[in-house]
Amino acid sequence: MVVRIALDVMGGDNAPEATLRGALLACAPDNPRALAPERILLVGESDAIRHKLTELGSTLEFPIQHASQVIGMAESPALALRAKPDSSIAVCVGAVKKGAAGGLVSMGNTGAVVGAATIGLGTLEGVRRPAIAVTLSLTGQPVTFLDMGANREAKPQDLLQFASMGAVYMRDCLGVAEPRVGLLNIGSEPSKGTELLKEAYPLLAAAGARLNFVGNVEGNTIFGSVADVVVTDGFTGNVVLKLLEGFSGFMLQLVMAELKAHQVAWSKEALSNVKRRVDYAEYGGALLLGVNGVVVKGHGRSDAVAVANALAVAARTVDSNVNQHIIEGLRAQSA
Amino acid sequence: MVVRIALDVMGGDNAPEATLRGALLACAPDNPRALAPERILLVGESDAIRHKLTELGSTLEFPIQHASQVIGMAESPALALRAKPDSSIAVCVGAVKKGAAGGLVSMGNTGAVVGAATIGLGTLEGVRRPAIAVTLSLTGQPVTFLDMGANREAKPQDLLQFASMGAVYMRDCLGVAEPRVGLLNIGSEPSKGTELLKEAYPLLAAAGARLNFVGNVEGNTIFGSVADVVVTDGFTGNVVLKLLEGFSGFMLQLVMAELKAHQVAWSKEALSNVKRRVDYAEYGGALLLGVNGVVVKGHGRSDAVAVANALAVAARTVDSNVNQHIIEGLRAQSA
Repeated sequence: MVVRIALDVMGGDNAPEATLRGALLACAPDNPRALAPERILLVGESDAIRHKLTELGSTLEFPIQHASQVIGMAESPALALRAKPDSSIAVCVGAVKKGAAGGLVSMGNTGAVVGAATIGLGTLEGVRRPAIAVTLSLTGQPVTFLDMGANREAKPQDLLQFASMGAVYMRDCLGVAEPRVGLLNIGSEPSKGTELLKEAYPLLAAAGARLNFVGNVEGNTIFGSVADVVVTDGFTGNVVLKLLEGFSGFMLQLVMAELKAHQVAWSKEALSNVKRRVDYAEYGGALLLGVNGVVVKGHGRSDAVAVANALAVAARTVDSNVNQHIIEGLRAQSA
Repeated sequence: MVVRIALDVMGGDNAPEATLRGALLACAPDNPRALAPERILLVGESDAIRHKLTELGSTLEFPIQHASQVIGMAESPALALRAKPDSSIAVCVGAVKKGAAGGLVSMGNTGAVVGAATIGLGTLEGVRRPAIAVTLSLTGQPVTFLDMGANREAKPQDLLQFASMGAVYMRDCLGVAEPRVGLLNIGSEPSKGTELLKEAYPLLAAAGARLNFVGNVEGNTIFGSVADVVVTDGFTGNVVLKLLEGFSGFMLQLVMAELKAHQVAWSKEALSNVKRRVDYAEYGGALLLGVNGVVVKGHGRSDAVAVANALAVAARTVDSNVNQHIIEGLRAQSA
């Protein structure tokens, strides 16, 4: 049986052009991980979708599910979800809930996607709170950070669960056999940091062989391949994510300006390689781990490549049965 | 009357060479803000200091205060301060306490400097907790971030005081007439973020004309000159500071590697300009605001330029009477 991925065609700054181009790219025969078009359920204004596909010269037979409404990027998530029950985001979530799809991908309003998915799908057995996981391959090796903002505050037990979920994802989807898990802190000793971290540390350490806990990691060491999974609360994680985004853009500008001032014939290609490495949109976006379904939230400004990557991440996460393994991992932890 | 700055000659990765070279640089006649040598009280092993000064060919007449012990960079601050009462750090703090100096500069063990200064000097009238302030001029305009790690946790009232202290510093020492104060958060609305931030926001907003509060700022906007002072709790601040440090070094490596791979004749000078912009050691280090005296903690790996900058920051902070203005600001706030 083919498990579909629902794609919110209407979500994102460049929708529906970028999302549909992304779907086409995900199915391109020269793509080594190409998906069959029937695996991608296009969700949105159906006439607009068909029209755009024709315009793009596509002859692929995607399944399409109509959704008459669109939630804007700047709308209040709670209000918009109530006012627009037939939004493309809500219809994507509904498709997963009904089993018409195993996962969904949206580049739309983050709060609306997280809210609709959390409420609509519920959490997996044993999960206290879902977490947003973002994978970056800064040093060439992927590192998954979580929670990057699903929750504002966390309890020590939540951090333990984030560690477990992140480790399962790294193992199942990114092929890291025994993922090293670090706790983002301001010092290496177990006694460092906030009360939350001081209480979480022994919980993670006590997980023993079930978790390859490597202790505290710091903001200046995470670029040195010290951990495969970096666990933090959603507030700190979101600050970190936005800071990386802002800082990388800023630094690239600075580098370009300086190279120009020194009349260095800088290579656009070289700098765009750097940009790709530090831009998480390139990695297919963020995964909402812990909900009953696979939910991938791409960056609003995703281009077609990023959309195709997000679809690939969703398909891989569905196919590798990550959610079942998360449940089993948490069961073992609480046993 | 000349107010002296006590310099911990023995502190830092490159001490005493870098600290003494820094003192000489701070007094160099071609330095537009040159200090008189009699303003810099050299604290440390006196024979070693005299020997090194001769070796460096100096004929300047610095006052010297002997300290027989040195606290290592990796020592436990609490234990080291107890075991080494005659450490160069403790003697610097003692000099400020006795009034022999108005401020101190150390590149040594951060925990020991903060601990010794907080306990030894006490807090200014009305100050609940001191805060570590770090000034960066990423975009060409200085932005002061605090607290960058003096406290692990903060109360809303602490954030209000940090805002007030940071604004006084920006006005008195960096000449920003009405410093814009932003609260580091994960969204712009007042309702965003942790309980701490949701309670702090109205406190800052209620300060009215006494504080130019511009609301919440985010990690991806702080590089766009949205605020002159960015207020956060010490845990988040320390994570941010270390992340900026790690990420800037990492990105520069990435840029260099890519330019090399594309056989671009990259200019070392251009990239070291970038490095200077993102390296807070260049700005003279961190200021411990709120203690009864001026305390500048430079980065452990400071070179002579950074030490000279730190001495200049300390002298300027002493001369502009920042601490008196902080007291007056807090008095007005609680009136």
